[in-house]
Amino acid sequence: MTGSVIIAGLGPGAESMVTPDVAAALADATDVVGYFPYVARVAPRDGLTLHGSDNRVEVDRATHALQMASEGRRVVVVSSGDPGVFAMASAVFEALEAGPAAWRSLSIKVLPGITAMLAAAAAAGAPLGHDFCAINLSDNLKPWDVVENRLRLAARADFAMAFYNPRSASRPHQFTRTLEVLREECEPARLILFARAVSTPDQSLRWETLENARPEMADMRTMVIVGSSRTRRIDGTEIVYTPRSVA
Amino acid sequence: MTGSVIIAGLGPGAESMVTPDVAAALADATDVVGYFPYVARVAPRDGLTLHGSDNRVEVDRATHALQMASEGRRVVVVSSGDPGVFAMASAVFEALEAGPAAWRSLSIKVLPGITAMLAAAAAAGAPLGHDFCAINLSDNLKPWDVVENRLRLAARADFAMAFYNPRSASRPHQFTRTLEVLREECEPARLILFARAVSTPDQSLRWETLENARPEMADMRTMVIVGSSRTRRIDGTEIVYTPRSVA
Repeated sequence: MTGSVIIAGLGPGAESMVTPDVAAALADATDVVGYFPYVARVAPRDGLTLHGSDNRVEVDRATHALQMASEGRRVVVVSSGDPGVFAMASAVFEALEAGPAAWRSLSIKVLPGITAMLAAAAAAGAPLGHDFCAINLSDNLKPWDVVENRLRLAARADFAMAFYNPRSASRPHQFTRTLEVLREECEPARLILFARAVSTPDQSLRWETLENARPEMADMRTMVIVGSSRTRRIDGTEIVYTPRSVA
Repeated sequence: MTGSVIIAGLGPGAESMVTPDVAAALADATDVVGYFPYVARVAPRDGLTLHGSDNRVEVDRATHALQMASEGRRVVVVSSGDPGVFAMASAVFEALEAGPAAWRSLSIKVLPGITAMLAAAAAAGAPLGHDFCAINLSDNLKPWDVVENRLRLAARADFAMAFYNPRSASRPHQFTRTLEVLREECEPARLILFARAVSTPDQSLRWETLENARPEMADMRTMVIVGSSRTRRIDGTEIVYTPRSVA
């Protein structure tokens, strides 16, 4: 038996957004590894072992997956959203680089999923319909100065911006500072979307202007999207979108 | 009968990347509207009319979709990839804004799909595993100066960059100029992915350094991803990824 690791994206929450490729990988797995709320989305069955683990142990989890694959198991590492966007794919490759050379001949594959920013954008209209960027606001793995510099350059480039991990109980200050930086760079009427728990029964969407946005409008289940200078609401609707053209 | 418009993403090409939400919308549609190669991906059946149209008529196509919905039909507008990323969602909203006020009470919904940059990134490893941006290199709808300014700011922010519509027969010069700008801003060893026809039988992946990249490596079926300064290949493999941390 030849082992393998498939790093699969479960999408934002709804089962109806899981691709057939990912469903097939889960149906064929001997082991599923991931942060426990994501592993909990996989139905138990005979022949499948579920390995839920805590947050912030991404490289340990990835190492465990590679170790099991090297022993011949068919391991699926699950992420919510897309595994290549601030999720498990890079963590698995970091563990692969740090591990035994023999691991480099394992079969390793990434299966994309619907990432949170695209699900949030779709639910709200099309705020990412023109050039945009994606920034992880957590400073666990990068200095805050790097984030702040990226925010300023992205604002000057007039990108729409999608923020992952905007705010946690242990890091409430970053998003507060993010709003301050944006207020220095953008006009007060700039639109900001707070999209919480997108595609789940708890989904809520809220548009605010930069002027009225408050840090407590975001938490770790919130995707924040800042429009470009051209992003606008269609009168008489809740739809917000960015036109394709720069007039 | 109440009409509706669903703007649905078919993903990059493989049927196994079409979400169940999108498959269900297509199964329930009376009319499917889109650029003809995308409409050709939808199986004909009784009760379904397929309306394929040429490229570059996005707003006409969107207006047609809204008109049919106002007459009570269940219309699905198809895009490849994700409809909110350089695709039909913004075009439909532009047509909605320009059309009769009555259209604003129609049921309009966007269903996300796997966008080309995430399928390409997954096929290659995880080059978008850290902060990144997405830029449409076509200057059909924006002045080239805007594109060039965004490229320079994105390079200075050290974003990985995904380029949509990098090069067409009628616009060969933009990508040539893009490589020149990148050579002014980035080191010669910077990695660039040329991912063509991802997830289809014609898929090809090629990594080059910025120094060796040539304009003719891209065409309209190519997704181009430029790594950040930290993006690297894992020795002994074809995997390229961007680590999660900035050391």
